Amino acid sequence: MGAMAAALLASTAAQAQMKPEEMVETRQAGYQFMAWNMGKIKAQVIDGKEAYDQAKVAAAANTIAAIANSGMGALYSPETTTEQLGNKTRLKPEFFQNLEKAGQIGRDFSAAANQLASVAASGDQAAIKKAFGDVGGSCKSCHDNFRAER
Amino acid sequence: MGAMAAALLASTAAQAQMKPEEMVETRQAGYQFMAWNMGKIKAQVIDGKEAYDQAKVAAAANTIAAIANSGMGALYSPETTTEQLGNKTRLKPEFFQNLEKAGQIGRDFSAAANQLASVAASGDQAAIKKAFGDVGGSCKSCHDNFRAER
Repeated sequence: MGAMAAALLASTAAQAQMKPEEMVETRQAGYQFMAWNMGKIKAQVIDGKEAYDQAKVAAAANTIAAIANSGMGALYSPETTTEQLGNKTRLKPEFFQNLEKAGQIGRDFSAAANQLASVAASGDQAAIKKAFGDVGGSCKSCHDNFRAER
Repeated sequence: MGAMAAALLASTAAQAQMKPEEMVETRQAGYQFMAWNMGKIKAQVIDGKEAYDQAKVAAAANTIAAIANSGMGALYSPETTTEQLGNKTRLKPEFFQNLEKAGQIGRDFSAAANQLASVAASGDQAAIKKAFGDVGGSCKSCHDNFRAER
């Protein structure tokens, strides 16, 4: 087990007071709130369905980055997969057999979210599009690897 | 109607494509994720139940501030109260008869959250305690005024 995987498990242990269902609900809340903010950036910068408002896009990107950097790894424990919780979660047990890969995807996600926040602050819409795509790509990478179909 | 109240309603109109239930779920996700992060600061700085880790407290405070500044007013519309949605929400209809007050509480909340993020970055635990209390006070102010009992 590598350093990041060990750190992830240690972080998990520190949250032992949370019940598995609470961990699932809390991480789902984080993803749902990020999705709302991704949707705002998409509407304003990608699809052009809403007028571009730099302050709103920057606030949305800041929120995504802050949540991505909030230590969500602590909301993942081996007791919180589809194996134990059925359709309350879509987290495959495979996540915990591939902690190195999961950790790498998580770090890539944080880096992409930080980059999105950085370019959103600058207001360069071409750069925002690129960074938005990279964030979406890291979401998809985790989904493809570790999220169960519905 | 004052400028802030008008701005709140205009912002609400821009999110007209969201269904009332989606607005409720999304704002609840934001509050749940903030509560998780408030809990981490409480455990580390107020109750001392967990070792103080400046980076974690700063990340938690940053997340709370980013969510507070993310434009959650757009998730409030007059169709999303207990009157229409029963126990899916605790938002009293009175919120929309007191938009000036609601707006002021929202601005106070953002200011308190920004102050918490600022002192969390500095690592001054006494200042963090004070700012944490101010954030909690602004949460309570909204609950006392506009949240239905369960």
